[in-house]
Amino acid sequence: MRVRSLATISLLTLTGAALAQSSVTIFGVLDLSYQYVTAGNDVAPGVSGQHIHRLEGGQYTLTANRLGFRFTEDLGGGISAGGVLEAGLLPDTGAAASATQFWNRQTYVSLGASSLGEVRLGRQYRFQDETLALTNPFNNGTILGLNYGYRSSGPLGSPGDFIPVFVDNARVDNAVQYLSPAFGGIKGQVMVAAGEGVAPSYHGLRLSYVQGPVVFAAAFEAEGSSPLPRAKLLTVGGSVDLGLFKLVGGYQRGRDLNANMVGAPTNPMALSDSIVSYQHTTTYTVGVRKDVGAFALGANYGHVRFDNSMGQDRSLGRAAAGASYSLSRQTRLFVAYGQSTGDLAQRVIEHRLFQAGINKLF
Amino acid sequence: MRVRSLATISLLTLTGAALAQSSVTIFGVLDLSYQYVTAGNDVAPGVSGQHIHRLEGGQYTLTANRLGFRFTEDLGGGISAGGVLEAGLLPDTGAAASATQFWNRQTYVSLGASSLGEVRLGRQYRFQDETLALTNPFNNGTILGLNYGYRSSGPLGSPGDFIPVFVDNARVDNAVQYLSPAFGGIKGQVMVAAGEGVAPSYHGLRLSYVQGPVVFAAAFEAEGSSPLPRAKLLTVGGSVDLGLFKLVGGYQRGRDLNANMVGAPTNPMALSDSIVSYQHTTTYTVGVRKDVGAFALGANYGHVRFDNSMGQDRSLGRAAAGASYSLSRQTRLFVAYGQSTGDLAQRVIEHRLFQAGINKLF
Amino acid sequence: MRVRSLATISLLTLTGAALAQSSVTIFGVLDLSYQYVTAGNDVAPGVSGQHIHRLEGGQYTLTANRLGFRFTEDLGGGISAGGVLEAGLLPDTGAAASATQFWNRQTYVSLGASSLGEVRLGRQYRFQDETLALTNPFNNGTILGLNYGYRSSGPLGSPGDFIPVFVDNARVDNAVQYLSPAFGGIKGQVMVAAGEGVAPSYHGLRLSYVQGPVVFAAAFEAEGSSPLPRAKLLTVGGSVDLGLFKLVGGYQRGRDLNANMVGAPTNPMALSDSIVSYQHTTTYTVGVRKDVGAFALGANYGHVRFDNSMGQDRSLGRAAAGASYSLSRQTRLFVAYGQSTGDLAQRVIEHRLFQAGINKLF
Repeated sequence: MRVRSLATISLLTLTGAALAQSSVTIFGVLDLSYQYVTAGNDVAPGVSGQHIHRLEGGQYTLTANRLGFRFTEDLGGGISAGGVLEAGLLPDTGAAASATQFWNRQTYVSLGASSLGEVRLGRQYRFQDETLALTNPFNNGTILGLNYGYRSSGPLGSPGDFIPVFVDNARVDNAVQYLSPAFGGIKGQVMVAAGEGVAPSYHGLRLSYVQGPVVFAAAFEAEGSSPLPRAKLLTVGGSVDLGLFKLVGGYQRGRDLNANMVGAPTNPMALSDSIVSYQHTTTYTVGVRKDVGAFALGANYGHVRFDNSMGQDRSLGRAAAGASYSLSRQTRLFVAYGQSTGDLAQRVIEHRLFQAGINKLF
Repeated sequence: MRVRSLATISLLTLTGAALAQSSVTIFGVLDLSYQYVTAGNDVAPGVSGQHIHRLEGGQYTLTANRLGFRFTEDLGGGISAGGVLEAGLLPDTGAAASATQFWNRQTYVSLGASSLGEVRLGRQYRFQDETLALTNPFNNGTILGLNYGYRSSGPLGSPGDFIPVFVDNARVDNAVQYLSPAFGGIKGQVMVAAGEGVAPSYHGLRLSYVQGPVVFAAAFEAEGSSPLPRAKLLTVGGSVDLGLFKLVGGYQRGRDLNANMVGAPTNPMALSDSIVSYQHTTTYTVGVRKDVGAFALGANYGHVRFDNSMGQDRSLGRAAAGASYSLSRQTRLFVAYGQSTGDLAQRVIEHRLFQAGINKLF
Repeated sequence: MRVRSLATISLLTLTGAALAQSSVTIFGVLDLSYQYVTAGNDVAPGVSGQHIHRLEGGQYTLTANRLGFRFTEDLGGGISAGGVLEAGLLPDTGAAASATQFWNRQTYVSLGASSLGEVRLGRQYRFQDETLALTNPFNNGTILGLNYGYRSSGPLGSPGDFIPVFVDNARVDNAVQYLSPAFGGIKGQVMVAAGEGVAPSYHGLRLSYVQGPVVFAAAFEAEGSSPLPRAKLLTVGGSVDLGLFKLVGGYQRGRDLNANMVGAPTNPMALSDSIVSYQHTTTYTVGVRKDVGAFALGANYGHVRFDNSMGQDRSLGRAAAGASYSLSRQTRLFVAYGQSTGDLAQRVIEHRLFQAGINKLF
């Protein structure tokens, strides 16, 4: 998901006492795929069991479409300042990804010292999203991405409500984050977003570890506003490179998710029966990735169980496999196929999805 | 209409096996003109016969206002990848040209091979628009542009409904286009846009020919969704440089245009009488262009006949002349004057329009 | 407020006869501050006397958040063409600053000759705004900025209506401006914006003087549409560098402001009593600024009197002080505190405001 900085304009500017180097980087992604979707048999009249051909840039991209500007300035003495403006977009229609937040992907300003860490202010990734990217053969790209679950309603060709496999409300507004330096491969992050009287407040803690073939991260997040209990989310994941292939996996446990969670997903309980809303989720995934020359092959499986306060539960999952081929470091072709599983397998629109597309970084 | 790439950032990036050169180009247009508009005598109470002074960047520009990013990557072996993000804008107010599709002008990703042609995925120009640009002394710029017809309603100073001279719904979403290489000056293009269950589907075919002083193109397009008959549009046009001056001209024939055509224009029949909606259009234009040093002089005439199923018809046209002066390759001054003709001459707001403006490419 | 051009892409393009140099500059600001706000005791139930912690990028920035593109072209012979596209944004949420005018800060194209002056067409600053920036220790930045008055309503954490200290409707659409060259330090500007049948028309005249330690400007503006009397605004201001410190100050007189003034502010009269709307404003400010190494210290006071046609009046003011510290020419840290004064001191939300933030230019 991390976009490479490919077009950099650099120049030297003299500051009062020191020599500061400042740069602006323009970066972006164009990603479109042909998708053939077969809806589940139990979605809605006129949709159930139907299929559609579509050219799609908003759902199941290899990396999400965007245009961004990155600013970095070396202030000397190991101190640096910077920032990011990053706008999502839908290249199939030219629409901005968000109608109300143009720079919806990230907008923050940062100040860092190599020995002390970094502080970031603005709209940033929730820790669940940063962690889930590690649990996936293609970093949440394509139909293998479990953070982007399923649509449960709406016409066949346009967005509707979503059901997650992994709960992932990717970003939070008004946030202050501290990122520690790495100590022996371990890095800590804490983030707070005051609700400002409008939204629930957010608190997050994340620890990550990178050493040799092992990558691991754990995130604990709480979000909500009284008098309801706060939503709580534990997300862990990582990968180990076994040489022959790379093993990836993750686990997530959500508690008291409903009304307290910003961006709480569609109630999967209500989808299947007239029973009480779910409150808790338990999700796991396991996958493999194998790189052969310019090819990357991946397969994974994920499964979520939704529980409510009456002890009722429903399950949903996905089995998927795909491949990408790198024409260069910036240009990839890809194909993937995924299929829903579990109690709600026939209640989702993307019951079966095949895709073949192109992903272009710049 | 084609904007020159003037600010290019290039750098070399090493790919797995080959050396790929990648670049990002920022380009744009700022175009504003003073316009003096006299409304027809038969438009609406309070508007008919009135005039207005305005500073305008949305209608009758020399080239349309925009900001764009173009990405190109040479993958070696004659293969290249690229893409465009291009946003229309209105510099008189700072508004985006489209409230819902920020990158409304073009957003596509492409993959090409010099010997095989190019495939483009995304939001792209309909072939009618690409063809009409050839039929015009100023490539559809200024009041000489017949693809941008007339407003038929609305207050004097703000946009309302439109009546076309040439039917031109410039772009289509969700499109896949194939562009052939040139064989003896001849190039073919085919494009398909699946409606995705929301919009009518589009199919287009275009042939173009460039040889010495002759440029010619023909486009056939069909668009619609059952059960109604599909709208069909044949558009031909071109130019021949006779040395003393350049002759330009075009012809368009539209059939079953109404409800099946995305962006079908205001019903000109209903404007004049309480008669049945029009279904067919027949349009032609002829014009001349003469370049003298930094000056370009142009004049043209266009005429459309609207027909309905009852055998009734109405006509509309425009006679116009203008001149541009190039201060540089990027900066032009221009003046133009146009006047409506035909049965509906007094039913349009821009019955008479004079403009003087500046056009700045970057 | 004027942003430095830091990333410049330059290249040479050959024109017909001359050599023109053309460049595109990307520039911007990221500015976020922690703000602790205590509302006045007489605002609204549930808000009065309350306080809030917030991370804010839209109100009381040191310089306002933006992304812009600047185009310049040297046409030779002292003639140049150029333009600006500048979009405001809110980095705490990623939203565009304006929901309807994306390039809301400035969008204009210009043509200039060194000996004759410059003409600009498009969306531009009203002269009141350009003049007020001179009257302020931090060029209207932070809570010391009096052009951004107070919110009078709305929830504690989100925007509501505004009451000004200085009337400042910063920009005008559809404007044509002429800027003279400087004669002995004196420069003149005139601007006209035709209402185009939709908005009131605007006329402005501004004279400015820069000589040694003295900067001074005066602006007279009239705006409105018949049959109501036109709103009239006289704004004067400037600074003198006394060596030990810099003295800044300004005065503004508004007449017949109400319905005729585009962007006329909330009626402060109606806020306090059920009395006739105000029509006139009389505002003054005085302040000091002291630069010590990388520090800049400032303090100021401003006061407005609102009068209505019945001879009734109400007052509002602000006393504030702040400091900034430059880490580089592009990166500053800042703190400031301000407090409302006058009859309406307890009728505003930002009765007391403390802020500590970072401002990053690029």
